[in-house]
Amino acid sequence: MEICQIMERQILTRFPSAQVLSVPVADGGEGTVDAIRTACGGSKHHLTVQGPYGEGMSGFWGLLPDGRTAVIEMACCAGIPLVAGRENPAVTSTYGVGELMLAAAKSGAEKIILGLGGSATNDAGCGAACAVGVRFYDENNVSFIPVGATLCKIHHIDTSGLAQELQSKTVILMCDVDNLLYGPNGAACTFAPQKGANEDMVERLDFGLRHFSNIVERSLGKAIGMTAGGGAAGGMGAGFFAFFNTEMKRGIDVVLDLCQFDLKLDECDVVFTGEGRFDSQSLHGKVVQGVSVRASRKGVPIIVIAGDVDIDALNSDGTGITAVFSINNLALDFDTVKHRCRQDLSFVMDNIVRIWR
Amino acid sequence: MEICQIMERQILTRFPSAQVLSVPVADGGEGTVDAIRTACGGSKHHLTVQGPYGEGMSGFWGLLPDGRTAVIEMACCAGIPLVAGRENPAVTSTYGVGELMLAAAKSGAEKIILGLGGSATNDAGCGAACAVGVRFYDENNVSFIPVGATLCKIHHIDTSGLAQELQSKTVILMCDVDNLLYGPNGAACTFAPQKGANEDMVERLDFGLRHFSNIVERSLGKAIGMTAGGGAAGGMGAGFFAFFNTEMKRGIDVVLDLCQFDLKLDECDVVFTGEGRFDSQSLHGKVVQGVSVRASRKGVPIIVIAGDVDIDALNSDGTGITAVFSINNLALDFDTVKHRCRQDLSFVMDNIVRIWR
Repeated sequence: MEICQIMERQILTRFPSAQVLSVPVADGGEGTVDAIRTACGGSKHHLTVQGPYGEGMSGFWGLLPDGRTAVIEMACCAGIPLVAGRENPAVTSTYGVGELMLAAAKSGAEKIILGLGGSATNDAGCGAACAVGVRFYDENNVSFIPVGATLCKIHHIDTSGLAQELQSKTVILMCDVDNLLYGPNGAACTFAPQKGANEDMVERLDFGLRHFSNIVERSLGKAIGMTAGGGAAGGMGAGFFAFFNTEMKRGIDVVLDLCQFDLKLDECDVVFTGEGRFDSQSLHGKVVQGVSVRASRKGVPIIVIAGDVDIDALNSDGTGITAVFSINNLALDFDTVKHRCRQDLSFVMDNIVRIWR
Repeated sequence: MEICQIMERQILTRFPSAQVLSVPVADGGEGTVDAIRTACGGSKHHLTVQGPYGEGMSGFWGLLPDGRTAVIEMACCAGIPLVAGRENPAVTSTYGVGELMLAAAKSGAEKIILGLGGSATNDAGCGAACAVGVRFYDENNVSFIPVGATLCKIHHIDTSGLAQELQSKTVILMCDVDNLLYGPNGAACTFAPQKGANEDMVERLDFGLRHFSNIVERSLGKAIGMTAGGGAAGGMGAGFFAFFNTEMKRGIDVVLDLCQFDLKLDECDVVFTGEGRFDSQSLHGKVVQGVSVRASRKGVPIIVIAGDVDIDALNSDGTGITAVFSINNLALDFDTVKHRCRQDLSFVMDNIVRIWR
């Protein structure tokens, strides 16, 4: 949002009568609810839910102006910043996420958009499922709330208690990764190390996810092990496939659809977008590509402004991108220049707009 | 010249039918003759002259297509790269510069353009003057060739032996500094340290220049101590005021006049220029300002492309500059990025041209 403000200010300095449509985009992680509300409007609702360690904390969800679409970011009550210094994907839970979903559904939301980015957990979304009435039983038929370390203890699953308000509702998962639930490309092996797991824990978490997949197939008749994106948010992607009526979309496409970006493009002379580092990844399912594909389809020029720019990434001319600029104005390392990024962005943006003028 | 080639290639990639006029500009230092010849054409003449330590070396001068204008860079036979590892402004001489001037004049040049940048000397141009017939005498009336350390021994000067070919010829000094001959702002105090002088030597050199100024005033009736630019090239600026019919011009203005830049501008849609570092100095008498002043007077947009860009330097809108871009694409220090400067320049140039298109 701050970047949008800086860019807008620079445009209006040179073109005072320009109309600037700012669409802060989010990738499904922290800040997703606020970003979508900035782009689309709507209300924000706070309530007390369980944090990653079961502690009470203030969570929130957003309701869009249609009154029927809710937005939740799982990181709000199960995100990595909440466990700073005490990271442990074996014991943290997504329970609070389910509480937020239930509150949104009870308020009349027909569709829940759930951002999967930035998780601290590895419970395959079982915590959230418990919060909305799904029951997990061990081999002694005792129900419990599974976490990463205890997924392997699940013996069978009963979804009959799923809250009335969530039945037949659609959950749209904002997800930018293609990882599977388990295996070398799975949630544990790929993401658990950055959530605090050592090699040994990764192995046990991966075993738990694989076991969970088998139980789901046996109990619910759903095969979730080979679904791309199932490994998102510590397996929440796959878990939600099992428990809910879900649809998986790229974060950027969710945001652009919500704000009717394609319609807005019809009135645009140019689109500015960007990211921290522009590289070959940028052209594969991330923000820049999502924006570029739509803008170029409408013939609107696209200027990308990034922190670092990998100059080899734009080799192909088929990207639809008009031009890419870095905000680095001095040959200095990142630790030095990061403190001046606002001024650097302002300067580069101003100079691009000056050319335009 | 390489930068011009890179920019031209990028322009032609996007606008294959564009006409690109490349004007490599020089500041009067090393490369000036080649740069001017690239911009204006003409021939290049080699001859053996004395180097800074009196050793024989191959020097050169250029003759422009008019057959009447010669171009010489003093650095060619008295420049700092020639004395690498044995710098000593107390003993090095500009003698070879005079030899080049004489050769040019004998070939029919009516006007000599002399670039003053990059000198290794502090002899106030006395060496060059000796080579063309000026005589310097000590208190015993013995003639000698003064160098930095022996300027203080000059008792009187006799210019009556000045070579016939150089009489009534004009010497245009390309000079981008305003320093005086001596004093705290003078040739020795400002430039001698980077030519290898220690504090003690600087003091003695400064004393010699002051003495030289007094002798010139007494012997030739010319006051050279307060002339801006007199301190250029180890005092050669002031010395040449004393011995020749001189005119001092900014290096960039000499080049732009020679290549009829103002006329060329009438056919230009945009001018690209640049330098290593764009900062507040850039707007005071250097290449970028010289180009910008002329282009903005004709209403032609000017894009500056630089290595580093001081983002505070463009604060005022009265510069006539349309936009400024750095070629830094990554937040890395100069030692790292300098090896990729060609690719970085190509990339940024291409993206600017893409916007244009």
